[in-house]
Amino acid sequence: MKKITIQPAATELFIGTGLLKSAQLKEYFGGTKVVVVADPAVKDLYGADLAKQLSAELFTLPNSREAKTQDVSNDLINTLFKMKAPKETTLVAIGGGATTDLVGFAASIYMRGIPTVLIPTTLLGAVDASIGGKTAIDTPFGKNLIGTLHHPKAIFTDFDTFQTLPESEWFNGWAEILKMGLIQRTSLWNLGFEKRNDPALIINAIEAKIAVVEQDPKEKGLRRILNFGHTIGHALEAISDYQIPHGQAVAIGCAAEAHLSMQLDYLSKEEFAQIETTYLSFELKLPKNYDRSKLLGAMAHDKKRAAGELRFVLIDKIGHALPFEGAYCRPVEARALEPTLDWMEKRYA
Amino acid sequence: MKKITIQPAATELFIGTGLLKSAQLKEYFGGTKVVVVADPAVKDLYGADLAKQLSAELFTLPNSREAKTQDVSNDLINTLFKMKAPKETTLVAIGGGATTDLVGFAASIYMRGIPTVLIPTTLLGAVDASIGGKTAIDTPFGKNLIGTLHHPKAIFTDFDTFQTLPESEWFNGWAEILKMGLIQRTSLWNLGFEKRNDPALIINAIEAKIAVVEQDPKEKGLRRILNFGHTIGHALEAISDYQIPHGQAVAIGCAAEAHLSMQLDYLSKEEFAQIETTYLSFELKLPKNYDRSKLLGAMAHDKKRAAGELRFVLIDKIGHALPFEGAYCRPVEARALEPTLDWMEKRYA
Repeated sequence: MKKITIQPAATELFIGTGLLKSAQLKEYFGGTKVVVVADPAVKDLYGADLAKQLSAELFTLPNSREAKTQDVSNDLINTLFKMKAPKETTLVAIGGGATTDLVGFAASIYMRGIPTVLIPTTLLGAVDASIGGKTAIDTPFGKNLIGTLHHPKAIFTDFDTFQTLPESEWFNGWAEILKMGLIQRTSLWNLGFEKRNDPALIINAIEAKIAVVEQDPKEKGLRRILNFGHTIGHALEAISDYQIPHGQAVAIGCAAEAHLSMQLDYLSKEEFAQIETTYLSFELKLPKNYDRSKLLGAMAHDKKRAAGELRFVLIDKIGHALPFEGAYCRPVEARALEPTLDWMEKRYA
Repeated sequence: MKKITIQPAATELFIGTGLLKSAQLKEYFGGTKVVVVADPAVKDLYGADLAKQLSAELFTLPNSREAKTQDVSNDLINTLFKMKAPKETTLVAIGGGATTDLVGFAASIYMRGIPTVLIPTTLLGAVDASIGGKTAIDTPFGKNLIGTLHHPKAIFTDFDTFQTLPESEWFNGWAEILKMGLIQRTSLWNLGFEKRNDPALIINAIEAKIAVVEQDPKEKGLRRILNFGHTIGHALEAISDYQIPHGQAVAIGCAAEAHLSMQLDYLSKEEFAQIETTYLSFELKLPKNYDRSKLLGAMAHDKKRAAGELRFVLIDKIGHALPFEGAYCRPVEARALEPTLDWMEKRYA
C-alpha cells in the first residue's frame, strides 16, 4: 500500500490492493458516524459489505444515467436531515466519478460542509474524478455546471475494484492518462493500452494529476491544462446526449485539439503525426447524430469560455501545454477551428 | 470612506457614506460583466439605479419571507445559464442578510463558484451577515442548513442605506453588537441603543467580527463564539415560525446563555446581574406559542450539536467567551438547562 498526502487540504490518499477488506480501513474511521453512498450495482458488489464493516448507514442512489442531479443530491441531503446526521458525519462515496462528484457536492453544502471519503471503483475515478476536490451535479443546461471545490478527507483507491470493469470503462480512464501524457508527463504517453492495469502506471498517473492540482488548486491557471481535449470532448458528449462514452469523446477531443495546436503553429507536424497514429490505434467514432453546427452550439456552454469566446488548451510538444501568460488556455475564433473540424470529421466519421 | 482588507480571501471592504453614488463604485467594476440581485423593495430604492449605473442585468427576488429557498436560488442560477453568464460574471447582492446569504450561495455553486460583491443595506447585514463568507439557504428542516463558505470579492457598506430602516431592523443589528460586546470586545457592550447610528461604533463592530473570522475562517474553534446566544435564539425563532424578529430572539438568547454561564459557575453573579439589567431595558418577549418541549425539540436541529448533545458557547466574564480546550463550545445536558429555562420563562413571559 502506498500513502500520499495531497495539499492544500492534506487529503490522505491510500492506494493498493485489498484495501476494502483491510483492518486499516476500519481503523481509519474509528468510531466516527459514517454514511456510505453507492449506486445499486456498487452497493451489491462492495457498498453493503462496507457499510456493515463500518457499522454505517447505507444510502443507495437511483440506478439511472441521470443520477447526478439536484433531485438526487436533495434526496441524500434530506435523508441526512431525517437521520439528524451531525456536522461530524463522514459521507463515504464508493463508486465511479458520477457517485463521488454527487456525494462530494451534497457533502459540501450540507450544514456548510461535512467531510467526505472517496472510494473510486473505476480507473477514471482513480486517476481523475477523485483527485483535486471538484464536485458537481448536472443541470438541464449542461453537465457539471453546478458544483463546488470540496477536498475529501481521504481517498481509498483499491485496484481490486477495477478488475470487474468492462473494456469501455477502462478506456474512459485510459483516455485521461493519455491526455496527461500529452500535456504534462511524457512517461504517460503512448505506453500501450495493455498496460492499463499496471499499478505503477496508475500511481504515476495519479501523481501527475496531483502535481498539477497542488500547484493550482483553484484552477486560476495551470490546472486548466487538464481541460485539454475537453472543449471538443465535452461538446461531443453533449450532442450525443451522453450516448458516446467519455473516453471516446476525450480521445477524439485530444486528437482534434492536438490538430488545432498544429494548425496554429504551436505543435510540429511530426509530433502531431505521432499523436494521430496513436489515436488511430483505437476505434474512435463521432456520435451518430454528429453535426458541426450542433458541436459549435454545445461548445458555447463550456465553462472555460469567457463572454462569447471559445477557449482551448493547446500543446507545443508532447508532454507540454502552452502557458499563454499564465492562463493556460487561449481564445480561438470559430473560423480558425474549421480545418480541425474538417480533419476530425474525415478521420472519425 | 474607510477601506479594510479581510483575510484569508483578501475581501476589500469599503465603509462610508455616499458610496452607492460614488464614481469609485463604478470604477471598481470597470468593464466586468455584472448581475445585480435585489428584492423588490431594495430594487426600487437602490437596485435599479445601481444596475443602470453599472450597465448590469438586474434580477429581482420574489417578495416573500421564504425568499432564501433552493427554488429561488435555482431561479437565479437558471437565469444566469439562460443569459450564458460566463465564469467571470460578478453577482452583486444588494439588500439584507437574506439577500446576501442567498446570492452568495447561488454564486458559490454556479460553475463551481463565481465572484460576488455584497452591498448590505441593514445594520445586521453590515456587522454580521456580510462578514466572514458564510452563505446559506433555508430548508424545510431548518434555516441556514444548506450553505457554503464563499468569500466575497468586495463589500460596500454605505451608511446612507440604513437611514430608512424601521426600529426593529436596527435592533436586529444591535443585538449582534451587544453579543460581540459580551463575547469579545467590552467596548461594544452596553453603549446605549441611541448610539446605533454612530459610524465609529458600527466600524468597531465590523472590525470585531473581522478579528474573529480572520483567526478561524473555517469555524474550527474560535469563530464558534459568534454563536453565543444563538442556540436558544435560533430555537426561539424556529418555534415562532420566524414571527419573532432575529434581534429579539438573539437578545433573549444572549441573556439566557449568560444565565447558563452563571449557573454553571463560569460567570459571576454580579456580572450576570449587569447583563440582566441591560437586556431588561429592551422590550423582549418570548414567542406567543412558546413551549419548553418545542424549544428543546428545535435545539436538537442546531448545527453546533454533535450526536445527540446540546452545545453552548459560554462566557466567563463580560467580553470573554470560554475556550473549552479550543472548541469554544461545551456540551450541556438538557437537565442542566432547566434553571435557565425557568428564569427565561419568568423574565420574558
